[in-house]
Amino acid sequence: MAQDKKLVEAITSMEVDFAQWYTDVVKKAELIDYSSVKGCMIIKPAGYAIWENIQKELDARFKETGVENVYMPMFIPESLLQKEKDHVEGFAPEVAWVTHGGLEPLQERMCVRPTSETLFCDFYANEIESHRDLPKLYNQWCSVVRWEKTTRPFLRSREFLWQEGHTAHATAEEAEERTVQMLNLYADFCENVLAMPVVKGRKTDKEKFAGAEATYTIEALMHDGKALQSGTSHNFGDGFAKAFGIQYTDKENKLQYVHQTSWGMTTRLIGAIIMVHGDDSGLVLPPRIAPTQVVIVPIQQKKEGVLDKAYELAGILKTGCRVKVDDSDKSPGWKFSEHEMRGIPVRVEIGPKDIEAGQCVLVRRDTREKMVVALSEINEKVTELLNTMQVEMLERARAHREEHTYDAVSYDEFKDIVANKPGFVRAMWCEDEACELKIKEDTQATSRCMPFEQKKLADTCVCCGKPATKMVYWGKAY
Amino acid sequence: MAQDKKLVEAITSMEVDFAQWYTDVVKKAELIDYSSVKGCMIIKPAGYAIWENIQKELDARFKETGVENVYMPMFIPESLLQKEKDHVEGFAPEVAWVTHGGLEPLQERMCVRPTSETLFCDFYANEIESHRDLPKLYNQWCSVVRWEKTTRPFLRSREFLWQEGHTAHATAEEAEERTVQMLNLYADFCENVLAMPVVKGRKTDKEKFAGAEATYTIEALMHDGKALQSGTSHNFGDGFAKAFGIQYTDKENKLQYVHQTSWGMTTRLIGAIIMVHGDDSGLVLPPRIAPTQVVIVPIQQKKEGVLDKAYELAGILKTGCRVKVDDSDKSPGWKFSEHEMRGIPVRVEIGPKDIEAGQCVLVRRDTREKMVVALSEINEKVTELLNTMQVEMLERARAHREEHTYDAVSYDEFKDIVANKPGFVRAMWCEDEACELKIKEDTQATSRCMPFEQKKLADTCVCCGKPATKMVYWGKAY
Repeated sequence: MAQDKKLVEAITSMEVDFAQWYTDVVKKAELIDYSSVKGCMIIKPAGYAIWENIQKELDARFKETGVENVYMPMFIPESLLQKEKDHVEGFAPEVAWVTHGGLEPLQERMCVRPTSETLFCDFYANEIESHRDLPKLYNQWCSVVRWEKTTRPFLRSREFLWQEGHTAHATAEEAEERTVQMLNLYADFCENVLAMPVVKGRKTDKEKFAGAEATYTIEALMHDGKALQSGTSHNFGDGFAKAFGIQYTDKENKLQYVHQTSWGMTTRLIGAIIMVHGDDSGLVLPPRIAPTQVVIVPIQQKKEGVLDKAYELAGILKTGCRVKVDDSDKSPGWKFSEHEMRGIPVRVEIGPKDIEAGQCVLVRRDTREKMVVALSEINEKVTELLNTMQVEMLERARAHREEHTYDAVSYDEFKDIVANKPGFVRAMWCEDEACELKIKEDTQATSRCMPFEQKKLADTCVCCGKPATKMVYWGKAY
Repeated sequence: MAQDKKLVEAITSMEVDFAQWYTDVVKKAELIDYSSVKGCMIIKPAGYAIWENIQKELDARFKETGVENVYMPMFIPESLLQKEKDHVEGFAPEVAWVTHGGLEPLQERMCVRPTSETLFCDFYANEIESHRDLPKLYNQWCSVVRWEKTTRPFLRSREFLWQEGHTAHATAEEAEERTVQMLNLYADFCENVLAMPVVKGRKTDKEKFAGAEATYTIEALMHDGKALQSGTSHNFGDGFAKAFGIQYTDKENKLQYVHQTSWGMTTRLIGAIIMVHGDDSGLVLPPRIAPTQVVIVPIQQKKEGVLDKAYELAGILKTGCRVKVDDSDKSPGWKFSEHEMRGIPVRVEIGPKDIEAGQCVLVRRDTREKMVVALSEINEKVTELLNTMQVEMLERARAHREEHTYDAVSYDEFKDIVANKPGFVRAMWCEDEACELKIKEDTQATSRCMPFEQKKLADTCVCCGKPATKMVYWGKAY
């Protein structure tokens, strides 16, 4: 048991140092390793398997809405990046530049894509001629590079994995509809699969994507009360279409510009899962996203019949969930700690006495609750438990968010909350960027979003006292 | 019907110009488009869906053998690339170099990975300590960059998609076993899923991978008689381990070097599918890899009940295959040509007269054979037809290869065959690189492989007349 303790002691407590706790979990749960390229991470099997599940779930949802996958080159010639003014200003300072191909200097340098709007636009300009070619609903799964100064695993790294959807539509209405549709899809995915509640809303002009007319976002609250932007969906209007000359002939044979959207989710979601659900024993994975949902730990596994029974149970459970038997030669206590660290939702313990009594023990990862279950009922009980956990993890995360969402009417109140109560602060705003800047300077809180569900908390802006038009979620963010 | 003709006429005949035929198919079947980055292609939905199926099939097979997926950074610092002497010599001339991150020059330039041996080795050097950490069976799906001078869609492009497996083992025997296991897995996949027969063998030292002790390959014969290397598996011995210091303590507590392998398949396979199965009407997809296996084309679709019946059939077929209804407002003839161009294995035609007679017409893409089938039997008949096509396409490709595989005993005979009969030439070799070089210079044929199934065609080397030790497949290659 000294051994078991050691494994758990290797993680810093959340209360002591949340940032260090996060780093410890990421390493001890074997999600990533650092690489010899500063700011780039190696995603290890336990981390990548979570990403594969995220991909599978999202990809199926995308395809149900008519989206098709494509693959664009990873390089963008400098002249192409510069075609849309706001976009290049937003991204040029943080791209990686390729200057040589083989032994020769390139005629024009290229950046490694930080995002692919410009490539899709260049493609659409050739591809779209008539209204019959619309809509285009394309997506790609790839990695992108942004040369950030400070990095953290999953949350901000110089290379990360993501999907980027890029659509082109005949009308502004259709583009707006798609932008909101994808945001809703993201929010449903977060709530139903990741058990992570999100606030849906629109970014202020200051916080929107470089080149977008409107950016919609889902914002989640982490365990430490900081906000994490978890997915965004952008409506570009016809701005990119005008910069790139993407036109189609409509039914009256008139030339029109297309209206475009883009939307993306990244490996950052793995960071969100860790910080929403994790605890001082490590990762806690919502069942629906867990690569292994159930681990069977045989007790006194060298005794006759124990391992056989463990494999038999795995065979039964396999029909309904993702299950593994840990038959390694470590002690049961060590295995318990290890699988807790890795966040496996349900542990099944089975030993000689259990077999004699025709039962086994189930332990849920989130609450540590133990229950004795008849072997004959194991399938139903495990399925039931996984479902219950999924629901309760979402409820718990939602309750945590509600408890850490505050309303502020006066600026003193606002500053006091930001300084002393980690979480979201809701407050009214006059829509003047000056107030947004002042709030950031005074408190380090940024506007997270103007939620779709508006509520009038007061008549005046929390900062300047002038008439307010929007209720805004504010918070310190990752 | 003038319209239909136009679509087909847009492809050059294979007999007239095979290279142009290939380019036409790639474009007209909408598999790719050219991008503004020279030598890099855009993989369009029809092309990417084939790749997704390849990934799905291969990935499941890898995982069955214990392989886990990971993700490594896309950049390799120059000093890391240089650690293994042969490897850097092989790749440095064709990598893309990143020299700036954001606005600042990098302290050390990095290349975009052309392959990731060096990254995996660097990782394994930190990760592996004891024999308990072995074997490591990792794979990644990613894109790689090789700055080639001449490029062709799928066959040779500056960026391509692939998987690269990298394993580390305790013993030389285990590494050799894994190298061969993966080659066999590749060969089975090509034969069973892509209906493409391959010759399995070992590369000569001249043709092996930069840094490998042995490279195994599968070689397929294209319709024009040229060879295509379709997958490779490398045994590195402990060469990389020594260069990177990858050691483990064995059961006797002694420090040992690991033995490593790597193996890969790429989007080049899509080029192979095109050139093995395609014809003058376009692409012909083997059913098991086809994104859409059956397309239903309603005849006189505006007549009452026709479209409903088409959807009803799709509903029935959906349980057993990937099916689509083409309800666009194009003419049936146009649709026939279009779906033939895209290589969809089976077409179902259903019109008012068919409905009255309780039947429909099935047309197979490969032979154009038509059959009338009772609607009540459609599911069984379509399943049967897809299976038959899969088998017969493999048989046809195998027969084509056999017919285009020649044995040469004398050098005159050898040169005559290479000059006049496109295909594989089998001939004996003394294992002296001088003969290999001479043959290439004289005939442009390269050694494709020393097949696992050896046969003694003669006692002496086809080139120099000295005693021969190996039977070799030679051919002109992509």
